[in-house]
Amino acid sequence: MHPSARSADLDDDHFHDECGVFGLYGHPEAANLTYLGLHALQHRGQESAGIVTSDGEQLFVHRAMGLVQDVFNQSQLEKLPGRYAIGHVRYSTAGGSGLKNAQPFAVDFALGSLAICHNGNLTNADELRAELEASGSIFQSSSDSEVLIHLVARSTQTTVEDRISDALARVKGAYSLLFMTEDMIVAVRDPRGVRPLCLGILPGSKQSGLRDAHVVASEPTSFDLIGAEFVRDLEPGEMLVIDQNGMRSLRLTEKAEPHMCIFEYVYFARPDSRIQGRSVYEVRKSLGEALARECAVDADVVIPVPDSGVPSAIGYASALSIPFEMGLIRSHYIGRTFIEPQQSIRHFGVRLKLNPVATILRGKRVVVLDDSIVRGTTSRKIVKMIRDAGAREVHMRISSPPTQWPCYYGIDTPTRRELIASSHTVEEIARYITADSLAYLSLDGMIRAVRGPDVRNESPAGYCHACFSGEYPIAFTPPANGKRQMRLVGV
Amino acid sequence: MHPSARSADLDDDHFHDECGVFGLYGHPEAANLTYLGLHALQHRGQESAGIVTSDGEQLFVHRAMGLVQDVFNQSQLEKLPGRYAIGHVRYSTAGGSGLKNAQPFAVDFALGSLAICHNGNLTNADELRAELEASGSIFQSSSDSEVLIHLVARSTQTTVEDRISDALARVKGAYSLLFMTEDMIVAVRDPRGVRPLCLGILPGSKQSGLRDAHVVASEPTSFDLIGAEFVRDLEPGEMLVIDQNGMRSLRLTEKAEPHMCIFEYVYFARPDSRIQGRSVYEVRKSLGEALARECAVDADVVIPVPDSGVPSAIGYASALSIPFEMGLIRSHYIGRTFIEPQQSIRHFGVRLKLNPVATILRGKRVVVLDDSIVRGTTSRKIVKMIRDAGAREVHMRISSPPTQWPCYYGIDTPTRRELIASSHTVEEIARYITADSLAYLSLDGMIRAVRGPDVRNESPAGYCHACFSGEYPIAFTPPANGKRQMRLVGV
Amino acid sequence: MHPSARSADLDDDHFHDECGVFGLYGHPEAANLTYLGLHALQHRGQESAGIVTSDGEQLFVHRAMGLVQDVFNQSQLEKLPGRYAIGHVRYSTAGGSGLKNAQPFAVDFALGSLAICHNGNLTNADELRAELEASGSIFQSSSDSEVLIHLVARSTQTTVEDRISDALARVKGAYSLLFMTEDMIVAVRDPRGVRPLCLGILPGSKQSGLRDAHVVASEPTSFDLIGAEFVRDLEPGEMLVIDQNGMRSLRLTEKAEPHMCIFEYVYFARPDSRIQGRSVYEVRKSLGEALARECAVDADVVIPVPDSGVPSAIGYASALSIPFEMGLIRSHYIGRTFIEPQQSIRHFGVRLKLNPVATILRGKRVVVLDDSIVRGTTSRKIVKMIRDAGAREVHMRISSPPTQWPCYYGIDTPTRRELIASSHTVEEIARYITADSLAYLSLDGMIRAVRGPDVRNESPAGYCHACFSGEYPIAFTPPANGKRQMRLVGV
Amino acid sequence: MHPSARSADLDDDHFHDECGVFGLYGHPEAANLTYLGLHALQHRGQESAGIVTSDGEQLFVHRAMGLVQDVFNQSQLEKLPGRYAIGHVRYSTAGGSGLKNAQPFAVDFALGSLAICHNGNLTNADELRAELEASGSIFQSSSDSEVLIHLVARSTQTTVEDRISDALARVKGAYSLLFMTEDMIVAVRDPRGVRPLCLGILPGSKQSGLRDAHVVASEPTSFDLIGAEFVRDLEPGEMLVIDQNGMRSLRLTEKAEPHMCIFEYVYFARPDSRIQGRSVYEVRKSLGEALARECAVDADVVIPVPDSGVPSAIGYASALSIPFEMGLIRSHYIGRTFIEPQQSIRHFGVRLKLNPVATILRGKRVVVLDDSIVRGTTSRKIVKMIRDAGAREVHMRISSPPTQWPCYYGIDTPTRRELIASSHTVEEIARYITADSLAYLSLDGMIRAVRGPDVRNESPAGYCHACFSGEYPIAFTPPANGKRQMRLVGV
Repeated sequence: MHPSARSADLDDDHFHDECGVFGLYGHPEAANLTYLGLHALQHRGQESAGIVTSDGEQLFVHRAMGLVQDVFNQSQLEKLPGRYAIGHVRYSTAGGSGLKNAQPFAVDFALGSLAICHNGNLTNADELRAELEASGSIFQSSSDSEVLIHLVARSTQTTVEDRISDALARVKGAYSLLFMTEDMIVAVRDPRGVRPLCLGILPGSKQSGLRDAHVVASEPTSFDLIGAEFVRDLEPGEMLVIDQNGMRSLRLTEKAEPHMCIFEYVYFARPDSRIQGRSVYEVRKSLGEALARECAVDADVVIPVPDSGVPSAIGYASALSIPFEMGLIRSHYIGRTFIEPQQSIRHFGVRLKLNPVATILRGKRVVVLDDSIVRGTTSRKIVKMIRDAGAREVHMRISSPPTQWPCYYGIDTPTRRELIASSHTVEEIARYITADSLAYLSLDGMIRAVRGPDVRNESPAGYCHACFSGEYPIAFTPPANGKRQMRLVGV
Repeated sequence: MHPSARSADLDDDHFHDECGVFGLYGHPEAANLTYLGLHALQHRGQESAGIVTSDGEQLFVHRAMGLVQDVFNQSQLEKLPGRYAIGHVRYSTAGGSGLKNAQPFAVDFALGSLAICHNGNLTNADELRAELEASGSIFQSSSDSEVLIHLVARSTQTTVEDRISDALARVKGAYSLLFMTEDMIVAVRDPRGVRPLCLGILPGSKQSGLRDAHVVASEPTSFDLIGAEFVRDLEPGEMLVIDQNGMRSLRLTEKAEPHMCIFEYVYFARPDSRIQGRSVYEVRKSLGEALARECAVDADVVIPVPDSGVPSAIGYASALSIPFEMGLIRSHYIGRTFIEPQQSIRHFGVRLKLNPVATILRGKRVVVLDDSIVRGTTSRKIVKMIRDAGAREVHMRISSPPTQWPCYYGIDTPTRRELIASSHTVEEIARYITADSLAYLSLDGMIRAVRGPDVRNESPAGYCHACFSGEYPIAFTPPANGKRQMRLVGV
Repeated sequence: MHPSARSADLDDDHFHDECGVFGLYGHPEAANLTYLGLHALQHRGQESAGIVTSDGEQLFVHRAMGLVQDVFNQSQLEKLPGRYAIGHVRYSTAGGSGLKNAQPFAVDFALGSLAICHNGNLTNADELRAELEASGSIFQSSSDSEVLIHLVARSTQTTVEDRISDALARVKGAYSLLFMTEDMIVAVRDPRGVRPLCLGILPGSKQSGLRDAHVVASEPTSFDLIGAEFVRDLEPGEMLVIDQNGMRSLRLTEKAEPHMCIFEYVYFARPDSRIQGRSVYEVRKSLGEALARECAVDADVVIPVPDSGVPSAIGYASALSIPFEMGLIRSHYIGRTFIEPQQSIRHFGVRLKLNPVATILRGKRVVVLDDSIVRGTTSRKIVKMIRDAGAREVHMRISSPPTQWPCYYGIDTPTRRELIASSHTVEEIARYITADSLAYLSLDGMIRAVRGPDVRNESPAGYCHACFSGEYPIAFTPPANGKRQMRLVGV
Repeated sequence: MHPSARSADLDDDHFHDECGVFGLYGHPEAANLTYLGLHALQHRGQESAGIVTSDGEQLFVHRAMGLVQDVFNQSQLEKLPGRYAIGHVRYSTAGGSGLKNAQPFAVDFALGSLAICHNGNLTNADELRAELEASGSIFQSSSDSEVLIHLVARSTQTTVEDRISDALARVKGAYSLLFMTEDMIVAVRDPRGVRPLCLGILPGSKQSGLRDAHVVASEPTSFDLIGAEFVRDLEPGEMLVIDQNGMRSLRLTEKAEPHMCIFEYVYFARPDSRIQGRSVYEVRKSLGEALARECAVDADVVIPVPDSGVPSAIGYASALSIPFEMGLIRSHYIGRTFIEPQQSIRHFGVRLKLNPVATILRGKRVVVLDDSIVRGTTSRKIVKMIRDAGAREVHMRISSPPTQWPCYYGIDTPTRRELIASSHTVEEIARYITADSLAYLSLDGMIRAVRGPDVRNESPAGYCHACFSGEYPIAFTPPANGKRQMRLVGV
């Protein structure tokens, strides 16, 4: 591709998750099922995918750049034998792209082989890395996972399990982790439970002589696909060890208040997922209803920005008894390889993904629902598109508060400067995106909607909402330093 | 891919369009804009794509298997110079797959070079082919287009335009055609106007010295993307000639009653398209409303089979004041390369594409809207999926009549035997798909909804509904003979 | 590859053969053996390769750009079933490159399917093509083979065999042809026998129940590889028909004096081949011996330009009792994908392929043997390389006369203007290539050496030596018109 | 490729070098020139290739499986900026194949970034690796280079240079190494100088303002190609440091008698190379002459097994005044992708690479020269091929002693059991390969021929000839333990 060709992805103006993880212990088709599990987590990362399996004696690795369906084919899955597997999908981030940062990460060390999958970010990774280098460690990637593996390898404990505990005692940050050795899978959620991780069971069958298999994954959607059943979310700070003796739950020493990432509900998770016991679809609908209560508008039609805005638009429309319509149609055929022809005299931008249904919009007062505004550029194009299609008024409603702060816990966000809400009032943003009105959901409104009617979920401290509030629950390296990059470039 | 690996596409139980065409006359970036136009028509054919351009003296061709975004990159677009272009997307059909059948088809002949794009099917192609072979013609593909090109090449007329008329006088069937020579584009719609074809204008600008460019395409959606404006649909039997002298409209000699394919409204066209003056989205919503009138059901929630069922479900739900919800979530990441691991003990089928939102369905009486039932296998899996998610009742509603007859006018349909409605009553189908109730829209109901309130659209004869009614408006080779296949295999 | 990157092939300053053909009738592994046969003919064409097989009812085709080993893999060979096969390797020529010109060429026509492989050039192809177009034929390639297929398809004869005769009666030029229908292979050599074609037999075995299979190929080297035995060369003007009734030899009506291309001995054929009964290696050695008689030089060492100059250098050295050494080492690793880095400050040219052995050359009077000089640029670099390695004198000896005339019979030659010998004396060329002396073999000397001691081979008219003598045995379109190119560009 | 397809490489019955290295300090086109240098070293390793460059601040890496010309293209070379570069070609070995073992190997460590290229084998790598793992190191490859990098990273010295010395003091074995940091290249040859490494200079030019650049490489052939001049071989145990201050030569503490690998002369090096001051071509010719003295035979023709046997056959033939001929022709077109069709009824083996020239061999007493016999299977096929072509007698002469012992210093050799000469007498081998006679050169004869007439080269201890004599100059892990493999499989 010509360097100046612009990928249509440039218009995808959202925060991006950095990873999804999936693990399976005890099934003869571990690689096949992990492949399917990763497919169900594909929305959490589209840059690279990988699977490591174990046949009890050796680990087998395959990872590559691309979607799950491009990275694996039948013959490659056949080269991944064994009954245990962990897998990973990864989102492309600015500085750490490329095959060498693809996961799972796998090495040989004193106690055998070890593989790791990571969703999250270690906020003290740079310090740890510098310390490790000073004592003679070498690094082949810019990934936090390599830091963790070094800590495990250098631990003086005698079992892998104890070494992992030992290593985790050193790290700070957000992490949902899967480790695998030749005969064990260890799943860990950080003490504040920032990133999701849940446990399932794949029922065996007497007929085929299969025993129940344990499954762990970022989202239970991946259980649905392979016929596994959701058991429960891992507790913040919980470490599950699964081996031949079954499964046991340990607790990391550090105690902390839970701070589940609230953005999983707003945008990251699939709507058919259930995070911390709550249906993501229902939460999004509640966000729309709350938004209707907080900032109603007299309108003829409510439309979502598809697909993420659909449940909140349904909630908003139904709360105000305004008709809901799919006024913007999303193309199914836009992928990473799509290029905008470079010498083109127009910038086609968001039109490559979305097209308005003119008959629905013409002459109407339109409310358009979206989950968030990052830079504002896409929202501006969407408002223009709706107005060009003949809308009389365009009111934008956002089912979360203004995103003003970067995330340091594993989400790919722009710098603060690029976040339009960090330096502009709602009125200024409304003017920039040329909307007749713009309203965001309040922080309280969002937290109440996410918490739901359940009385047990009372404390607003239960969530991390730093990107909205700037209240960061975990210390991090001051942003001025930036994320330390690998000095090596290429593969 | 291992031969026994099953593509997830096997579960896509729909009729399939065979082609989309796009042409542009008079713009310095003809190839780039045609690439974008084809992207907007991608839903009409995903097997192969191609573009032919002309710089006024030579034709330049590129075509390959795959999606538009895979077939073209910056460097290939740069090898397609010139101000005129026609392009094509093609759906894979059983017997005629492969690069040699990809379009545009282009040849040298006595008057220069000639390229052709075709959406439709010539019902007397086999007779014409046999006749041409008998007089010494050779064939390199199984495509009808090669028959047409031979007829043009063998015509005794002196201009290309007259030769095209001459050739078309010989053929029967459904066809929306684009021809291109070194300096002319000819667009033709068959006498009954079975397949859509419309005209647009891409406004020039004084600033850049660009003159208005003419655009023709299967659907006006492709105009929206490139900033062209819809002018009108071509008339059935109209032949538009666009060259340096401008555009002129001719009429094919044969006169016939119009029979626009009604399935374009039901499923083929994009919802944001306008076919014969009617918004496809609005028509689909009307189909849902009509269905609500004809076969209401007492229910708690109405859900669509996404994405095609969305507008009719909105119409149905709003007509009966039942809440509309997106109870099934569709994966964005399933493509042609996705394989189901072969040795897997389960068949994952439709779950790879769709997943239920349990909280919406649990304990509910659910109405699920779809556009059609072909073999019934997918509907059966969808009903089971909804019921497994906890629905108390599952009622399926289809926004068209039972599809009982194959199409011979360019749509890839199964044989009559495979169409479940051709040999089963609605009750039997309901039982097979395990729905608590099943209802189809009536033929009259569908026609009325498609025709809309406009008094000018009065005659039901205005549409081809042969796949529902068996009333075939154009004679065709008896199905027993089957479609004649190329004797040569491979590329 | 960047457009300005220079392929190392640019330095390959030779005439180039345009094709090799291979056919096999009556073996269960027809595709496999044809693949191996084409590998043995790879030196005759490296741009594209293809095989068509027949299972008695259908033809199966695979062809692509690249070497035989790149075009075919196990799974593609398995898609070519049947007991009959013809195959082709093709050299890239300036105007007619690309997949659409790859062979075998295969079509459906009135009597079934027909495939063709061609080595040679039809000198009246343009007239025939114009005539065919005038009567309504269409062309998809610039290949002569398509002209031939049209003539066969339009013949009024009733059998394929008679139609081929009929078609050949219309064409002029040089051609070694293989045709294949569903159940027959036809091999033809043009009336003057310009291009080689020979017959072999692959012995069956009672054990495995295999019957003898007939084999035809451009060179018998391909028989050696698959264990077939050489039977005889086809006669000029002979047409062999091989079908279920066995093999029969027919004679084309036209009678003509034989004019076998003498350059096959000088350069094209593999040294281990036997052409018209004479060992190519022995002929080349005789050319070196003749050159020693005609233009001896007092020297310390004789070295070849590898690999084509080796046998003539051995002959030259042994005739003059001067030591023979491999003073230039040829790299095995230079292929089509090798690029010279574009921004490089030096032009590495021939050094990428050849490197001198300094100890052999230093201080020596060196004779370097090559088969021909085309533009002179490579010879100049070779002389410089030898001199830079320390040679005291460099004498170049060419084992054929000066090449002054282009070939119109199927060999890719530069225009007359580019042939250095057409406008420069031997002395001028010697000066240009900076050799201390330069000498060519005389035309008579060459013919005598090629004819050998056999008294039956008396007439110098037995060979085509037009590229040396300008005596063209077959009329051709005047070069001013050039070769007519396809008006269509691309695939 | 189908798993049972046999690559033609299986017939390549030779010892194989494991690597070639090339480094360049101080040229604006460092990547381009290294690419060309690696091309000239391609014979030393065909599995993978890689280059690391430095722009003074960062290292840039590209490596992949395949030939140099396949691994690099223009755009990839452009992504390797900077004036310093090291590169590597690698041969595929049984246990350590795959991208993760491709070199250069590059990491970040405490002092910055560090890349390494290695030709040789560390005989105490397993012990060092175990020790490193025990103290917490992790390993991502099975390569010795990773062990070395760890030692450098863990050294307590303060400069990279001192750390390298420190690390090398720990290792045993054969190694020619290139290290590169952001601003320095370090070249090292092991204390016995087993593997070759030489220094050159690429002259600058006042015109272009270029200063002289330093070049280091496995063979000086690579200097010829880029126009660099050979300066000298590195001394055994020498460490050259090249940086902004120029070049300085250090000496590793360990002192040892030199043991240059004698097989470099017999087979590995290119004939146009000069190793330790001696022309490889001249040495091979001398080996043939010595063989003629030791074991003459009355014969009609001497032929080589091309290409490695050519110089020794010329020497042998000229010493005995028997005509030299190229009686076996080698195909230029057999590469890694060539497959033998699997279901084939014959095994084509060596015929895919070699074909006899019958007229040279028929009725003759033939001497065939080869450099070594490993398993004997290929020799047997060659003898049969020559005899089938009509030879009356076939005498095989080997220009080195019987190879009876595996190499532990970086050459890929079979186990002792597979070496036919380790368990069979010369007579038995002659019988196995069906030769009329077989003779090897004596160890003394070989050493004298390699040493040449130069009186300074007196001691036979100057060479490692362990594969012939079993006299291993460097201690190694007993072969029973085998080479320790990576426990991880895949990439």
